[in-house]
Amino acid sequence: MSLILDPTAQDLLFREARTANTFTDEPVTDEQVQAIYDLVKYGPTAFNQSPLRIVLVRSTEGRERLVRHMAEGNQAKTSTAPLVALLVADNEFHEELPALLPHFPQAKDAFFSERPVREQAAALNASLQAAYFIIGVRAAGLAAGPMTGYDAAGIEKEFLDGDHKLLMVVNIGKPGEDAWFPRLPRLSYDEVVTTV
Amino acid sequence: MSLILDPTAQDLLFREARTANTFTDEPVTDEQVQAIYDLVKYGPTAFNQSPLRIVLVRSTEGRERLVRHMAEGNQAKTSTAPLVALLVADNEFHEELPALLPHFPQAKDAFFSERPVREQAAALNASLQAAYFIIGVRAAGLAAGPMTGYDAAGIEKEFLDGDHKLLMVVNIGKPGEDAWFPRLPRLSYDEVVTTV
Repeated sequence: MSLILDPTAQDLLFREARTANTFTDEPVTDEQVQAIYDLVKYGPTAFNQSPLRIVLVRSTEGRERLVRHMAEGNQAKTSTAPLVALLVADNEFHEELPALLPHFPQAKDAFFSERPVREQAAALNASLQAAYFIIGVRAAGLAAGPMTGYDAAGIEKEFLDGDHKLLMVVNIGKPGEDAWFPRLPRLSYDEVVTTV
Repeated sequence: MSLILDPTAQDLLFREARTANTFTDEPVTDEQVQAIYDLVKYGPTAFNQSPLRIVLVRSTEGRERLVRHMAEGNQAKTSTAPLVALLVADNEFHEELPALLPHFPQAKDAFFSERPVREQAAALNASLQAAYFIIGVRAAGLAAGPMTGYDAAGIEKEFLDGDHKLLMVVNIGKPGEDAWFPRLPRLSYDEVVTTV
């Protein structure tokens, strides 16, 4: 056995976890989201830059404003999921950097004074954090339904300012009836890994 | 308790796991990397596009070719880590899409015929998979040392063709002496999460 992670945890996070397309009515509480965040915040980012921001869409009015920008095939599930989260990269993350990297506060100006550099760093590192978040949702016994099928500019205009870029929208809840399609194939190790 | 993941697994993957800067001599085998991949390959990507590719740098000559492109502060640890992996996004991932999405082979041409679209999708989705891979390294009881401090163009020219983009370099092994700095602070829930 090459993995030391308990097989039950392997199943919970990867093998049996699936992207859900339907959900039960059971609410997802702020306490659950806080527990997820307080676990996955420890996932590593470059310079500890931690650029992920999360917008929870809880109000009926907010949900309506969101759903109209989703691709048609994503509208029904985004309307009925117990909770929907916008996962967002903060392109001004460097403002928090002196607090996040107290032994090297010069990093803010030395590396991140230029906006295009920040945008590239935020896109990569917030995407890593988005993956940690999806794993965290599963760690809470919930199913995640990450989506990128939407009018990004429309959602950004509706919910964000010009310093924040939408990475994905994630439906969250307990899986409902016929929640997923059959498992799709994956590339084999030899198709993905080469050695030099 | 809002999380159902076993606390030991929470510690292994997030709370006690740390980015290692020194390593023991104990080798990391291909079998371990295969076990990691065969777990984390199930992490979700959009359209199951699975654009991550991994280059394991095992040979002495390959390690030398890599280290000379690393930032000075990353050279010693990249020289001495038992294994170094280049995590790479395949911008031609659409060639595999009909096999990965057998119920919708038209997606290849309908959504991914344009290279800039593929580059954006590959950057996001391979980054998600890079995070799953880091979690998988920890699931194997190993420490990951992800780095973005290097001459990316130099490494890409040395090891990749024009269709592959370097996301990060990851040192992998058992943590050695003084393997990490004190845990850095994280943003609080209220600094990261807003609700509408």
